[in-house]
Amino acid sequence: MNCAAAQALEQIGDWWTLLLVREAFYGTATFSEFQERLGIARNILTERLNALVDHGIMRREQIRPDVDRYSYRLTPKGEALLPVLVSLMQWGDEWIFDGEGPLRVLDAKQRKPIRTLVVEASDGRRLGINDLRFKPGYGADEQTLGRFRRAGNGGTG
Amino acid sequence: MNCAAAQALEQIGDWWTLLLVREAFYGTATFSEFQERLGIARNILTERLNALVDHGIMRREQIRPDVDRYSYRLTPKGEALLPVLVSLMQWGDEWIFDGEGPLRVLDAKQRKPIRTLVVEASDGRRLGINDLRFKPGYGADEQTLGRFRRAGNGGTG
Repeated sequence: MNCAAAQALEQIGDWWTLLLVREAFYGTATFSEFQERLGIARNILTERLNALVDHGIMRREQIRPDVDRYSYRLTPKGEALLPVLVSLMQWGDEWIFDGEGPLRVLDAKQRKPIRTLVVEASDGRRLGINDLRFKPGYGADEQTLGRFRRAGNGGTG
Repeated sequence: MNCAAAQALEQIGDWWTLLLVREAFYGTATFSEFQERLGIARNILTERLNALVDHGIMRREQIRPDVDRYSYRLTPKGEALLPVLVSLMQWGDEWIFDGEGPLRVLDAKQRKPIRTLVVEASDGRRLGINDLRFKPGYGADEQTLGRFRRAGNGGTG
């Protein structure tokens, strides 16, 4: 599908895979830590970690040259998923947990809550969906061009 | 799972469901528009739209009282997913399409690209994963308390 969000979802694979990324953000690194904390079967965990390594989201490192044990750490591409994870947590906190979520994300330096992620214009105005327009970019295929060329918001007005 | 991101994923359901939310952001509203634009079987589409309605992410409206046709629109809870979708698109643009993604998101007023979503401290400092600490919140269960009470970053430091 000719859409960056769809392609992103393609690489992240499924919700479970995103939970592995979340675990890595919490500091989980070894195979056995992932297994223990997520309660997931070894073969499925192996498959999902391998997919993340294949997509360049995690890198695998042998812990000691003589032992067949590995750690998995986020690459820069994986660390760049932080805004996705944080915006998902913030949405869950507000709309599922009614502002009283299980985990607070703090700035380590000041020990204060981080800002809520919002969509903003280049001058800082906060934008909602009706303030946005979608236009074909460099990577647009014919379908995307046909759909977004004229209307600018998906063909409805 | 006692985590807002996991609960959020639970409600959004799967990637396809998030693509329905994306379509709604583009202005897609009727059942037949969703079907045409996503190329998805009627029964599966029905199931997924119903799940979004059940979770309060979309609302269903009969288009005319005498005709059995419906439109699906995002509720405020659904519209609040905008930062998740946008951060996912921006990640895909940068890390999969190398900055040349298929779709550009513009501020309608100025016709300029929107800002990239980043995680920031309350004073505006840009934060990476190593600048964050995780602390149990009001909704924490025993497992979350045990895990995040001491270390503050998932038990590894």
